[in-house]
Amino acid sequence: MRSVYLDNAATTRVLPEVLDAMLPYFKDYYGNPQSLHRWGDAAREALDEAREKVAALIGGQPEEIIFTASGSESNNLAIKGLARAQQAKGKHVVVSAIEHFSVLNSAQTLEKMGFEVTHVSVDRYGIVDPEEVARSLRGDTILVSIMHANTEVGTIQPIREIAAVVKKAGVAFHTDAVAAAGNIPIDVKTLGVDALSLAGNQFYGPKGAAALWVKKGTRIIPLIDGGVQENGRRAGTENVPAIVGLGKAAELARLEMDSRGRRLTTLRDKLIGGVLSRIDRTVLTGHPAQRLPGNASFCFEFIEGESILMLLDQQGIAASSGSACTSRALKASHVLISMGAPHEIAAGSILFTLGLDTTEEDIDYVLEVLPPIVDRLRQMSPLYARFVKAQAGRS
Amino acid sequence: MRSVYLDNAATTRVLPEVLDAMLPYFKDYYGNPQSLHRWGDAAREALDEAREKVAALIGGQPEEIIFTASGSESNNLAIKGLARAQQAKGKHVVVSAIEHFSVLNSAQTLEKMGFEVTHVSVDRYGIVDPEEVARSLRGDTILVSIMHANTEVGTIQPIREIAAVVKKAGVAFHTDAVAAAGNIPIDVKTLGVDALSLAGNQFYGPKGAAALWVKKGTRIIPLIDGGVQENGRRAGTENVPAIVGLGKAAELARLEMDSRGRRLTTLRDKLIGGVLSRIDRTVLTGHPAQRLPGNASFCFEFIEGESILMLLDQQGIAASSGSACTSRALKASHVLISMGAPHEIAAGSILFTLGLDTTEEDIDYVLEVLPPIVDRLRQMSPLYARFVKAQAGRS
Repeated sequence: MRSVYLDNAATTRVLPEVLDAMLPYFKDYYGNPQSLHRWGDAAREALDEAREKVAALIGGQPEEIIFTASGSESNNLAIKGLARAQQAKGKHVVVSAIEHFSVLNSAQTLEKMGFEVTHVSVDRYGIVDPEEVARSLRGDTILVSIMHANTEVGTIQPIREIAAVVKKAGVAFHTDAVAAAGNIPIDVKTLGVDALSLAGNQFYGPKGAAALWVKKGTRIIPLIDGGVQENGRRAGTENVPAIVGLGKAAELARLEMDSRGRRLTTLRDKLIGGVLSRIDRTVLTGHPAQRLPGNASFCFEFIEGESILMLLDQQGIAASSGSACTSRALKASHVLISMGAPHEIAAGSILFTLGLDTTEEDIDYVLEVLPPIVDRLRQMSPLYARFVKAQAGRS
Repeated sequence: MRSVYLDNAATTRVLPEVLDAMLPYFKDYYGNPQSLHRWGDAAREALDEAREKVAALIGGQPEEIIFTASGSESNNLAIKGLARAQQAKGKHVVVSAIEHFSVLNSAQTLEKMGFEVTHVSVDRYGIVDPEEVARSLRGDTILVSIMHANTEVGTIQPIREIAAVVKKAGVAFHTDAVAAAGNIPIDVKTLGVDALSLAGNQFYGPKGAAALWVKKGTRIIPLIDGGVQENGRRAGTENVPAIVGLGKAAELARLEMDSRGRRLTTLRDKLIGGVLSRIDRTVLTGHPAQRLPGNASFCFEFIEGESILMLLDQQGIAASSGSACTSRALKASHVLISMGAPHEIAAGSILFTLGLDTTEEDIDYVLEVLPPIVDRLRQMSPLYARFVKAQAGRS
């Protein structure tokens, strides 16, 4: 049976070049970067090099990079660390309704600490209106966090425009670019943001290495207290091999950004077009054009995403029904609900995320396998039976 | 030139068996453990297996293990998470004066949040007196955290006795066992603790994988908010390869604990005996018997640890002058100062930490190279010149 991995939003495969770059730091250069000897020096030089490569990916400076262990940790550090550093100025924070749970739940933790949080809404494509962000700002607003691209529906936000209204008000602006960084071009200076989260396992780097970029001069309170690592902003022995892998993945992503993007967009559009033409009562979720190159997300009316996933898995196809971080919670996606999808439609969401390994044959295979799966599930669906009956009654 | 790595307290080399266990999770089973397909299943099964192995190392249950990215993160989660979960009951926390900075600085963060912290002292061997812990307890004490073994001086605490007085008072007890776990036998049930931190890179596992064991039924507030990973207690994509490596390292440490310990103790005692007999005005720091098998730590009077380190490095020997987490801060160790060492003696501290790769020839080499280095530095030391002059005047 064919094996088709279309869950790159959950995590990507580590590229062989990335793993090769990492291996010496398990085998030979295993020192602690803080140690004062040649083993330490080798590890520290590797960190420095990785820091340069990660900074280059997003147009930042190496000393502005704080290495963390996951995109979620970067988001927690950003939301809690930036808000707490400025709480003397005010205690109001603005996020969008479709942020990742690492942002939403960090904001909720801030609420328990006495902060107030405003959630700005999105339109049916998942787009945040910069004007609505502007209207949400108050005299005591100290932080706005709007994601760069949404993992589940692929929608890319007008970050530059949002940042402009936020910066005009003198408020700090963070963007969760975990789904975007390494996949679409990002330049922190052009965007005008103060902090940006990214994660290596979203662009063919290893799990366990991520970063928060924080603009020079921006105060942040650490999430993990302890030693002097990361300039005192994130304690704990640095995960040298994973950080080296993140650096290598960032370098490759920067160099191959355009060609990867073009190829993925072509395959994605073939998948989207094929699905929409072959399966009726199907909606493409997210923005039709402002979307991540590898993201093809749909809602199939009358059926449940999880059932589709299981039947796809039986055919060797890996997909997702939303964010991997909550997939086992089996709740309707807060992203789709926020975009105005009724619960019964949001329940039928399926997310295909293409990656470097994806071939045209993979897409053909999905287009062959998926329609009969959807058909079969609809035949068993009471909702669908009712719909067919109603249609018949109307004609 | 010979290469002799005696900085295993800073971090250990990853064992080849450990790396071999990890590699398939970079190459083949690269899925996200939360995903609902075969790639996810494979990753999740690997996590489950690693969880069992880590639990077995310390006599805990798999579901009591929370995977984190570093010993520092485990300590932050324990101190902040346990204290915040119980703050309705009281806001007093007790730690020892010689804890790792990830414990001390987490306690300091609690102070900023309105908690009160008592630091119990240690004797000249670095031992905490259970009676002093008992006296430090108050009606509003909600958490005590005393480390199992100290990285810098190797002293092993009477954790069972300390836990007994703490538990008698109905207070939660955490122990930072980062330096101890995997190196000396630990059984959480016998110890009677409620939470215990450990880190894979302290026993030949990879950097980037650590754990906090929390006794079933103990409430803890997450440090990293977000997805449903680790039962909602630590969000972020699990670092599967590193966790698999941690599991393998835990399994090997459990099976080989006794033989490793005996071998290291013999080599350590040879090093300690050799150094003390060959170099005068030298003190063994830490407890002479209750110490980690691989730890040989000294203070050489009249000279600076950092100078010794640099000259040792020139001879191919890696050592440390204290905790790697603060080595670049070049301050006198808070551990030695708390043990009553005068600043000028604490400044001359050198820590050799032996590991599985250490051979008898390595020890012979150190015993050959170290005395002339100490001599040479003393010849350049104004403190030593003053001492020699005083000695001459006295005779």
